[in-house]
Amino acid sequence: MKIAVLGVGTVGSGVFNVIQENQAKIQEILGEPLTITYALDRRQAEDLDVDTTHVTVTDNIEEIYNSDVDVVVETMGGLHPAGDFIATLLSKGKHVVTANKDLLANRIDELVAIANEHNTLLLYEASVGGGIPLLNAVETGLAANQITSLTGILNGTSNYILSKMDFDHWSYEQALQEAQVAGFAEADPTNDVEGYDVQFKIAVLSRLAFGLSIDADQIQVSGISNINSRDVEIGNDMGLTVKLIAKGDWLGEDRVSIQVAPMMLTQASPLANVHYAQNGAVIQGNAVGQTALFGPGAGSMETASAIVSDVMQIAKRRYRPKNFTTTRQARMQIDERPLNYYVRFKREASKQTAEILEALGLSKDQIKIKKSGVALVLDMALELRRELEANDQLAAIYQIEGEL
Amino acid sequence: MKIAVLGVGTVGSGVFNVIQENQAKIQEILGEPLTITYALDRRQAEDLDVDTTHVTVTDNIEEIYNSDVDVVVETMGGLHPAGDFIATLLSKGKHVVTANKDLLANRIDELVAIANEHNTLLLYEASVGGGIPLLNAVETGLAANQITSLTGILNGTSNYILSKMDFDHWSYEQALQEAQVAGFAEADPTNDVEGYDVQFKIAVLSRLAFGLSIDADQIQVSGISNINSRDVEIGNDMGLTVKLIAKGDWLGEDRVSIQVAPMMLTQASPLANVHYAQNGAVIQGNAVGQTALFGPGAGSMETASAIVSDVMQIAKRRYRPKNFTTTRQARMQIDERPLNYYVRFKREASKQTAEILEALGLSKDQIKIKKSGVALVLDMALELRRELEANDQLAAIYQIEGEL
Repeated sequence: MKIAVLGVGTVGSGVFNVIQENQAKIQEILGEPLTITYALDRRQAEDLDVDTTHVTVTDNIEEIYNSDVDVVVETMGGLHPAGDFIATLLSKGKHVVTANKDLLANRIDELVAIANEHNTLLLYEASVGGGIPLLNAVETGLAANQITSLTGILNGTSNYILSKMDFDHWSYEQALQEAQVAGFAEADPTNDVEGYDVQFKIAVLSRLAFGLSIDADQIQVSGISNINSRDVEIGNDMGLTVKLIAKGDWLGEDRVSIQVAPMMLTQASPLANVHYAQNGAVIQGNAVGQTALFGPGAGSMETASAIVSDVMQIAKRRYRPKNFTTTRQARMQIDERPLNYYVRFKREASKQTAEILEALGLSKDQIKIKKSGVALVLDMALELRRELEANDQLAAIYQIEGEL
Repeated sequence: MKIAVLGVGTVGSGVFNVIQENQAKIQEILGEPLTITYALDRRQAEDLDVDTTHVTVTDNIEEIYNSDVDVVVETMGGLHPAGDFIATLLSKGKHVVTANKDLLANRIDELVAIANEHNTLLLYEASVGGGIPLLNAVETGLAANQITSLTGILNGTSNYILSKMDFDHWSYEQALQEAQVAGFAEADPTNDVEGYDVQFKIAVLSRLAFGLSIDADQIQVSGISNINSRDVEIGNDMGLTVKLIAKGDWLGEDRVSIQVAPMMLTQASPLANVHYAQNGAVIQGNAVGQTALFGPGAGSMETASAIVSDVMQIAKRRYRPKNFTTTRQARMQIDERPLNYYVRFKREASKQTAEILEALGLSKDQIKIKKSGVALVLDMALELRRELEANDQLAAIYQIEGEL
């Protein structure tokens, strides 16, 4: 299937890279490759950071209007000219995949009407929550539910700043500067820190979840620029953590309440541990109860993951319905990578814990004695694990998951 | 669209109830209602716990083979006769939605081949992770990724037992008994506690994620019945929590490693806080990095949420591709339900914190003074919040999310 990419910036480059890197898998699923044949950019092909062999790079959208591409990926951002490009493309029979939340929050109903009229698809998973398959969960996996509430951390920049204030006791200004240096915040951070980016995202998400058109301008928004680090610290002492929260509540029929504001989260909130550039959302449905999704809210490859998955969905819909099929049998193996373990010895052997482990060939660095007979063993090869399991002084051994 | 339900037990009843409760929303999305016209059960219609008006209840599968239903929901469980019923239904042009992980782990490739041959769909979101839209995320939302690893807590019963051992210092036997009394464990808990249920689930999930046929019998399985509560406690002291983990790792090409075993999780693991009957899964993709999904792994309405969402997906695929469309504009309101707040007053007013709050009409029970000038205010009406915000002694106010 042929694709055009509008705007080869951070996210647009990610689309090139994901397709290139995963083409074998994509082709196995779709039965054909995805091929980028056009790119819209002001720069010359040789100035782009991606492989443009076989790609026509142009700054003239008319060329793409009149091309034979099936799907257009819009990664330019902004309302103009992206909005008019998309409207025209949809009306010319091109499917469109976009990450453009500003545009969607403003014009989605109009663009969808154009798409439905011309039997084209407009997909936009990447517009909310970056790589997290959040819209897909709401539209498809939880379709049978009346969604009653959405609560999300949907902006990585503001969350990064708040995490810095929380963990490192930085002031808002310090944290913002750090985020700008680290590349998490733009030179003009207004959209991120004043909550406008989140406003657009919760508008798009609420529309899908509640099945209602949303006037984004009516959302109450307050950002993080006025947060006093004193409150972050006092909250911290009380087990509360300050986060910029987007919240959509369904109040029955066509009534909803949507707001964006810094709130304090107790540890009982599934969002309390979403830190730095991570995003997350909690969805309440009347059948499923509570589900939650977490993952990267931004990034080149991360956002492109959502975009290319949308493109694949369009490709799949062009065929007759087909079940997920495998053509190869898995070769089941034992993962031989070294792992961390918890090890406990029987009481008789507890004094020789280190000796027993060192006798296997483990170095002192790999052995952390925790208490009598108990050790954490780091990076132990599978072969040594097997030898240890054969030791009749062993009382228990557990693989450890997570960073130590 | 017409549906038959095979087996009106806990999950089958949930399917009746979800469709009944959310019919208005379903009809708005699909443009037609979902109607259960047949149910297969040995009992008489009047002995079933659901509304069977207009439903033909029969114990003869032939009636359903020869009926005009479009989709059959299989909620009988077990290998026989469910497997042969599904094979026949798919070959007779009926789409099938099932929650039957035992059957899928054993016969999915064969059933999919029958379905593809007859242009029918076999969907099975409910078979892994109950109401969590996990398979949908892997198959659709993350389709563009090479999935490199899956790590999940996929059995609520064993997780409930482990949580009881961890938090309440119960022995395995005590916890199992309690779980049986509470209805979380069956009289014969073998499948749940020995890891066989998880074995079936990780086989189904790995097949979708890695795109390879999986021989479930080759999965290394160990359950939780031999866990010593001493290790749970020692682990706990060290910040490690014992969980029954299903793990699938892609090792390149057609090579995978899949295991089910109790492991110890550090707090850095996103699964460390999945407790009691909750389920969760962490997915690593080569583009998206890490995403995680959490929610209810079982339950009548929860599992039915996934089943009915699958039925809706089939209904949507029967039409031409159509974009998600709204027909009504949201009426945006302010949510007036009372909420909990963090409140901080300026230094001058810190001594009168309680007075100021009581003057608004808040009772002593609603006010928790935390330190000089700082209070948590419980269940405060929006009107009082507004009055408080107008008070010039107020330094900060935050809504609190999560149970206090």
